[in-house]
Amino acid sequence: MQDAQRQFVEAAAAALGPKSVVTEHDAIEPWLTDWRGRYRGAAAAILQPASTDEVALIVALANRHDVPLVPQGGNTSMVGGATPPPDGSALILSLRRMNRVRRLAAEEGLVVAEAGVILADLHAAALGQGRRFPLTLGAKGSATIGGLVSTNAGGTQVLRHGTMRGLVLGIEAVLPDGSIHDGLAALKKDNRGYDLNQLLIGAEGTLGVVTAATLRLVPAIAARAVAWVGVDSPHAALDLLHAMAPAADAIESFELIPAHSLDAVLRHIPGTRAPLERPHPWHVLIEAVASNADEAPSALIETLLAQAFERGLVRDAAIAASEAQGEAFWRIRDSISEAERASGPALQHDISVPVAAMPNFMIDGARAVEAAFPGTSAGAFGHLGDGNVHFHVRAPAGSAPDWPTRNAGVISPFVHDLVVAAGGSISAEHGIGQMKRDELARLSSPARMHALNAIKRALDPRNLFNPGKLVSLASDRLDQ
Amino acid sequence: MQDAQRQFVEAAAAALGPKSVVTEHDAIEPWLTDWRGRYRGAAAAILQPASTDEVALIVALANRHDVPLVPQGGNTSMVGGATPPPDGSALILSLRRMNRVRRLAAEEGLVVAEAGVILADLHAAALGQGRRFPLTLGAKGSATIGGLVSTNAGGTQVLRHGTMRGLVLGIEAVLPDGSIHDGLAALKKDNRGYDLNQLLIGAEGTLGVVTAATLRLVPAIAARAVAWVGVDSPHAALDLLHAMAPAADAIESFELIPAHSLDAVLRHIPGTRAPLERPHPWHVLIEAVASNADEAPSALIETLLAQAFERGLVRDAAIAASEAQGEAFWRIRDSISEAERASGPALQHDISVPVAAMPNFMIDGARAVEAAFPGTSAGAFGHLGDGNVHFHVRAPAGSAPDWPTRNAGVISPFVHDLVVAAGGSISAEHGIGQMKRDELARLSSPARMHALNAIKRALDPRNLFNPGKLVSLASDRLDQ
Repeated sequence: MQDAQRQFVEAAAAALGPKSVVTEHDAIEPWLTDWRGRYRGAAAAILQPASTDEVALIVALANRHDVPLVPQGGNTSMVGGATPPPDGSALILSLRRMNRVRRLAAEEGLVVAEAGVILADLHAAALGQGRRFPLTLGAKGSATIGGLVSTNAGGTQVLRHGTMRGLVLGIEAVLPDGSIHDGLAALKKDNRGYDLNQLLIGAEGTLGVVTAATLRLVPAIAARAVAWVGVDSPHAALDLLHAMAPAADAIESFELIPAHSLDAVLRHIPGTRAPLERPHPWHVLIEAVASNADEAPSALIETLLAQAFERGLVRDAAIAASEAQGEAFWRIRDSISEAERASGPALQHDISVPVAAMPNFMIDGARAVEAAFPGTSAGAFGHLGDGNVHFHVRAPAGSAPDWPTRNAGVISPFVHDLVVAAGGSISAEHGIGQMKRDELARLSSPARMHALNAIKRALDPRNLFNPGKLVSLASDRLDQ
Repeated sequence: MQDAQRQFVEAAAAALGPKSVVTEHDAIEPWLTDWRGRYRGAAAAILQPASTDEVALIVALANRHDVPLVPQGGNTSMVGGATPPPDGSALILSLRRMNRVRRLAAEEGLVVAEAGVILADLHAAALGQGRRFPLTLGAKGSATIGGLVSTNAGGTQVLRHGTMRGLVLGIEAVLPDGSIHDGLAALKKDNRGYDLNQLLIGAEGTLGVVTAATLRLVPAIAARAVAWVGVDSPHAALDLLHAMAPAADAIESFELIPAHSLDAVLRHIPGTRAPLERPHPWHVLIEAVASNADEAPSALIETLLAQAFERGLVRDAAIAASEAQGEAFWRIRDSISEAERASGPALQHDISVPVAAMPNFMIDGARAVEAAFPGTSAGAFGHLGDGNVHFHVRAPAGSAPDWPTRNAGVISPFVHDLVVAAGGSISAEHGIGQMKRDELARLSSPARMHALNAIKRALDPRNLFNPGKLVSLASDRLDQ
């Protein structure tokens, strides 16, 4: 451990007690690697405060001893966003001990949760009061509120409820200078200058550390309808989305699934079966919900699907006859990533384009990739209603398992160029972290990069917060 | 005109043509005073570019000649936000010539409008395509999109659709260094670092000038229900709001009106009449809408009001039997400010507190003010559902018309202290401008003010954009 780090750690242990500092190698080890095992860092200690005041104290010590901090929640970043730098220059600031739900006000429709609350636990707490926190994603058993806020997480219910940005009503954070920003009050109208809460959402811990958030709750689901629909093309799927507009207040998910992905699931995931009798080139999974059992959405969905069938937008459709069948439909969707992994090595891209541009992008983009990289096959699936798909480029048959690593440097920039040409985003819901940092710098306008760097320098002039992530200041310390 | 300004204006006229520069005194005069006549500034010229490139050129010239700019749209600020400094150091940058609707995509539910588009014109354009832009306010005939975005405007439909922040899907702006930020693409999921669009919303032109915005459209209204309800207290009104939750997807407005305000309207506004037979201490105006004529909300509203009556939450209620009657209810609400002005001098405060805290604040806050300033009477009305009321302190009987000016320095800080103690905001929907700049500095945490100033310095290091507004750098030029 470097001298400055040792002094910092000793001061933290003295002030907060030994429980707040972890220095045993075995205890640190699991938190040095991202959950997909792509990035590996080094850190001599994990600091784990139990309150906002303790976080502020740690940040003050970080300033005094000039030691950078890497905030960490559930460590489920897809872009290496919570992995410390490999040179051991930073310590990990874990928020996991701050796991209290401070207040859950069902009638007001809000909950105040600390940064370390795990998403699944928040779901359970809300449900216990007849409410729902309407954001979910695969890592819900590990991902924490602080990380979800800091990455503006998305998921499968964004169509109706938005990303975290649409669900955050307030934020408490410790800013890089050690001061506490108390923006927890849920004010629907508040125009007091630049919105620091909005700036912290999606900042990936580079502008300070979120310690708690006030989040919006919605009524619990009383009834739902899950439909599986066969369609001709992504274009037909988009027409179908528009045709479902009369049910827009009920539809939470509109997921597009190509035949290739369905086939991979049926082949590799035991116990799955095709929802429709005949094969179709593309599929749509629709979920509509109601908070009032009297307003079960099935009838409206069935009517709209029948009308769409008449118009030739739909080849075939099935509405789940039971909760179990609905779950089975969702299991197919949720198993795509696992099934595609089992099918062979592939490069994944989390991208978005304007919804109207998505069908062309899916077809033309895949063709362009396959033409440029012979032997590959490309395909996309995901949240069509959000303009967000996961775009996979699969290795040529017989490629070695390390094909993605060897080809990412050429293929991913090619895909990103296509995305930018379509007016899209190279990171729809996973953020930038370290994985896309250089691509962000390459593909953003100078105006934008200048502004991002200026904001980082203004709020974290000593580059103490999650250095090397998001902005391209690399892990170098900034000029002071 | 100062030398630097003269050179700037000559260069602008040479580059953009004489139409882009106004120097005639009579043409400038109306734009030097805010619309309530409280602030008066000086400016030797108005620059009025017709395109984003022309704005960028003007900003580049402003940098070259070191001349600050005050962006101006419809000049309807309630806080002197668009009035130039009195020393004549700045020029006005008017966006009014940039008044094109660039694209209106009804099926995609979005419109791209330039900064100078007037709100009422946007309403009309949307309606022409069967859509609605769901934000409206009293100044809609003058207020422009650029100003609405830059002040994060609110209004009477925020309960369901949010403020401008909830309706802006993309922004184009010229940043203080003259570069163009193109953030117009409507991406529902986009996590590429700090969200510059969110930072520009509500920045009051101090971080650059918004030149266009992509805005969300919703289906046009096919049916609506307008109800006028007599209640015992603000507490009963809040209980009623919760009781109406089953209609939450339809209710757009929930406005609280005290007897005093209704009486003022009936006394001063010709042709108005009380909606209910007997007098009540408090009133609620509820509007619910549906985009589908089959789902007319009247029946649900009537059922819920009947249930609330059974529970003792409601003293009496009337649902408008016709569009004309609904308009008559709204005319009462919309006339309150005018009627209160006619009743005598008063100090107005645009404040918000958490919705749950609002009833107590309205009662206790009014009592505290009346006790501290004998002879005054205090009362609040407005958007209960948003936690946003307009809190008026009326002068003692017989006070001179300049009573507000003479007493604002004492009474408004007293009110603001109450607001802060209740966890609220001293500016709910009007912004900070120059009127509340010093109060913002007084009542914000050092952490917050430090961050606001750091952001301003980072993005506008030469303080060229709307100097003297919002942040407390006064109109002095920053150290460079």
